[in-house]
Amino acid sequence: MHKIEIRTRAKEEFIDITPQVQRVISSNTDQKIKHVLIFIPHTTAGLTINECADPTVSRDLLMALDRIVDKNWSYQHREGNAPAHVKASLLGSSLCLIVHQHRLVLGSWQGIFMVEFDGPRQRNIYLSFS
Amino acid sequence: MHKIEIRTRAKEEFIDITPQVQRVISSNTDQKIKHVLIFIPHTTAGLTINECADPTVSRDLLMALDRIVDKNWSYQHREGNAPAHVKASLLGSSLCLIVHQHRLVLGSWQGIFMVEFDGPRQRNIYLSFS
Amino acid sequence: MHKIEIRTRAKEEFIDITPQVQRVISSNTDQKIKHVLIFIPHTTAGLTINECADPTVSRDLLMALDRIVDKNWSYQHREGNAPAHVKASLLGSSLCLIVHQHRLVLGSWQGIFMVEFDGPRQRNIYLSFS
Repeated sequence: MHKIEIRTRAKEEFIDITPQVQRVISSNTDQKIKHVLIFIPHTTAGLTINECADPTVSRDLLMALDRIVDKNWSYQHREGNAPAHVKASLLGSSLCLIVHQHRLVLGSWQGIFMVEFDGPRQRNIYLSFS
Repeated sequence: MHKIEIRTRAKEEFIDITPQVQRVISSNTDQKIKHVLIFIPHTTAGLTINECADPTVSRDLLMALDRIVDKNWSYQHREGNAPAHVKASLLGSSLCLIVHQHRLVLGSWQGIFMVEFDGPRQRNIYLSFS
Repeated sequence: MHKIEIRTRAKEEFIDITPQVQRVISSNTDQKIKHVLIFIPHTTAGLTINECADPTVSRDLLMALDRIVDKNWSYQHREGNAPAHVKASLLGSSLCLIVHQHRLVLGSWQGIFMVEFDGPRQRNIYLSFS
């Protein structure tokens, strides 16, 4: 199991972790890797794959999630971050990707994002190969 | 492949299945397990990982999903459970988790939930190791 | 890695790819297959598992996603397909399924769908076994 540490800087933020994930794969060329499982051990942050070329896409995603999950609904959770928990479940906590010849298999426009919904914080991401 | 059987008790409900999943892993210590794939073979229930320490989080999640997927939209599906199908797809039907030394790798606050959207019913969950 | 090519015919569309996925598995009976990872290398299309018996379910899903992700919000992305990106992230880009004796393990009503949100287009889907 490999760990990537991320320091987020804002309350809500898309962070493209593709280079870090690729770096971990590239530093394990002694191993036969077919798949990588990416897991985030947090409940107010998520993982998603989307366009990384144009930064307006991730800004639109944050805006849209903010409209979908209204912060003014009557939440019972007392910490004030209930919408962050909901957004985390809408995106999900784990991703499975194919690795071919020690390269992530992704479409031309795709990047892997860690999405912070309750930052800024110190976050971890776990990678496991198979 | 291993099966967990769950009897849900309400129309909509979060059920923390972490102990059952861990129990299946713990009873297979003869096997080398790196990953567990959790799959739900139903179309009106889903799987998600979120906070299990404070029960208000899962209550807020049910409430928020109920606001996001309005039961009064003009659905064509005749069984009256169309919103349950939509919620199931928003959460997803499969989860992949890392297992280390026969323990699920989860964050401090994370639990694995089966989410019933059209109960009460008898539900199955399948586990498969790799 | 195996590739399935799909020609979508509409702007938005659910396409049941279960038969194609099963066909790829069935043509690899020389291989021991426990799991199949299904990955879509596009950012305006997604993958989901839901009811395939009654076509009203997938029509309701498209309608509901259209209500959840309002096309009139003030998106910054200039290509006019920002809602498609959001919908893709709500469903997700990868699925993991169990395979038993060269058959997909699915519930009675479940099918695997590729969901087009910005068609018509030529789309690819990758499969990888483990």
